Amino acid sequence: MAAAIPVIKVAALSGSLRKPSFNSGLIRSDISQLPLLNTDLIVNRTYPPVVEAFRQQILKADSVLFASPENNYSLAAPLKNAIDWASLASNCWADKAAAVVSAGGGFGGGRSQYHLRQIGVYLDLHFINKPEFFLNAFQPPAKFDDDGNLIDAGAKHRLEEILVALRDLTLRLLK
Amino acid sequence: MAAAIPVIKVAALSGSLRKPSFNSGLIRSDISQLPLLNTDLIVNRTYPPVVEAFRQQILKADSVLFASPENNYSLAAPLKNAIDWASLASNCWADKAAAVVSAGGGFGGGRSQYHLRQIGVYLDLHFINKPEFFLNAFQPPAKFDDDGNLIDAGAKHRLEEILVALRDLTLRLLK
Amino acid sequence: MAAAIPVIKVAALSGSLRKPSFNSGLIRSDISQLPLLNTDLIVNRTYPPVVEAFRQQILKADSVLFASPENNYSLAAPLKNAIDWASLASNCWADKAAAVVSAGGGFGGGRSQYHLRQIGVYLDLHFINKPEFFLNAFQPPAKFDDDGNLIDAGAKHRLEEILVALRDLTLRLLK
Amino acid sequence: MAAAIPVIKVAALSGSLRKPSFNSGLIRSDISQLPLLNTDLIVNRTYPPVVEAFRQQILKADSVLFASPENNYSLAAPLKNAIDWASLASNCWADKAAAVVSAGGGFGGGRSQYHLRQIGVYLDLHFINKPEFFLNAFQPPAKFDDDGNLIDAGAKHRLEEILVALRDLTLRLLK
Repeated sequence: MAAAIPVIKVAALSGSLRKPSFNSGLIRSDISQLPLLNTDLIVNRTYPPVVEAFRQQILKADSVLFASPENNYSLAAPLKNAIDWASLASNCWADKAAAVVSAGGGFGGGRSQYHLRQIGVYLDLHFINKPEFFLNAFQPPAKFDDDGNLIDAGAKHRLEEILVALRDLTLRLLK
Repeated sequence: MAAAIPVIKVAALSGSLRKPSFNSGLIRSDISQLPLLNTDLIVNRTYPPVVEAFRQQILKADSVLFASPENNYSLAAPLKNAIDWASLASNCWADKAAAVVSAGGGFGGGRSQYHLRQIGVYLDLHFINKPEFFLNAFQPPAKFDDDGNLIDAGAKHRLEEILVALRDLTLRLLK
Repeated sequence: MAAAIPVIKVAALSGSLRKPSFNSGLIRSDISQLPLLNTDLIVNRTYPPVVEAFRQQILKADSVLFASPENNYSLAAPLKNAIDWASLASNCWADKAAAVVSAGGGFGGGRSQYHLRQIGVYLDLHFINKPEFFLNAFQPPAKFDDDGNLIDAGAKHRLEEILVALRDLTLRLLK
Repeated sequence: MAAAIPVIKVAALSGSLRKPSFNSGLIRSDISQLPLLNTDLIVNRTYPPVVEAFRQQILKADSVLFASPENNYSLAAPLKNAIDWASLASNCWADKAAAVVSAGGGFGGGRSQYHLRQIGVYLDLHFINKPEFFLNAFQPPAKFDDDGNLIDAGAKHRLEEILVALRDLTLRLLK
């Protein structure tokens, strides 16, 4: 008899709106339709439909995988915008396991990851510590194809290790 | 004969789109019309008109005063969005003096200020170090009136000290 | 029949060497005898005895409670020194649950906490997110007696909540 | 007639006590004799002689160059210790220009640099923004010889650019 293999639901969201983009090449999702955060848009305690739909996606996930591009040494605005919408009462992120990956020049997006981790303290996200995934997208050989798909075998393997670590932490945190 | 009094041009922008908002109560400006950052919106090397207008405002300033509300322990998305639009080639922020103020609960927005300062390294902004201005907006007595105007005398005085320090650093940095 | 009450071992260490100190008033321990970090002091793969003793204390704990005073907007040097000694191969902190508290002026030591949390990513510590504990030590009424003992009832209660959250996360993480 | 060439005094200090060390290979100085920070060592408002000598070195400099190794994603304890001793009243660092360089694996010490920049806000240091200098010490070809001297021509050139930028900012800030 086979042991039950636990399945967890992961919400994956990418901070880049370009298409193809290096970071949405890692994980595909859509946060581009969300309006700029403005609490005046909440009418009768009701969120705009596109916001509400996004919040539901986060709520039903067991854990979250962020692809966080680095813009000006911090998070990209569209990702922060999505995070903030889903954090409004009641906070959709609370007590979920999380991981973050990034691709970029220099540190491969690393500075945005540490800002995101500080944001996670308030959101009450439990980030995996290891492994970390920073992909220098501009060093040869090419890491992505023209459609933004990740094609580098080593990077793919490291991304799988992230997912394994995220699944493991998710399961450990289940009460 | 009176000495010439140097006048500097300060671009003031607030990260909050609520009206009235505590932070736009400190400094009024408008970044709410900017689209979510998406480089696909740059066509023939031309920015959308609302973006171009914002970039020109920054370019002609000698220094910048940010009112940076803290959302989820970092910058508000609309402020980061505005920063990112004006950072695209060529970077409009380069080599300007800057200051940051914030109002909020807890640390009065302090965590967003340190993230903004790290962003400033890439933007090449020269932030004043002292004084710092964190306003706990929820401790009595009331700091703002119902229209979001700052009414607290002590806070007004501290805000003036920020502006003096910003002017002084701006003048020191002039070559 | 009574249910088994899980007991966890918590290593508590304070970053301040003053006695009495606000932060060691919260938690008493001794890291003052550790030499300044210098890997030349490791001879034949053997740590100085005082370092080895400290490392063993950390190793046998299930979780860690840091009292992290803020010096110049970051960790106190003695605490960083202790952390670094216990991180050398093999890393004594790995995969433990952790919490951090601080007392001080202004943000009550908050800036040091966020630096410590980033350090924790490399150490592989799992920090509780909530509640956070920042104690403004200089606002009346007095929070500590002349011997550095915490005497404020509200602060004591909040400190207990930290310990409960630390215990809970420790138990959740047990495989 | 030749124009006067301004000469500025730079205090250079390295956070590593190993000898040879990558980071002290960039800049040689000695902070290893400072005791672990403990304000009980200040007797009759007098610092220990080794501390007082270090403070005088900082005081008479126009600007400061830090070689900041990264230990556990933040500053090395000996460097933080030296910084803290020289920050005690009256703050020796106040209003000086500064730059930071680092060598290491991964980001080349980058995470320690951003923590140091936040520390600099309280110290009132004016850091240059550009260029930044992160040296990945472990990528071939060898960057240092066996005595810890920097031998890589490209890195030497980038280090010179740091010094030029530091000199320029120092001169701009002179009132």
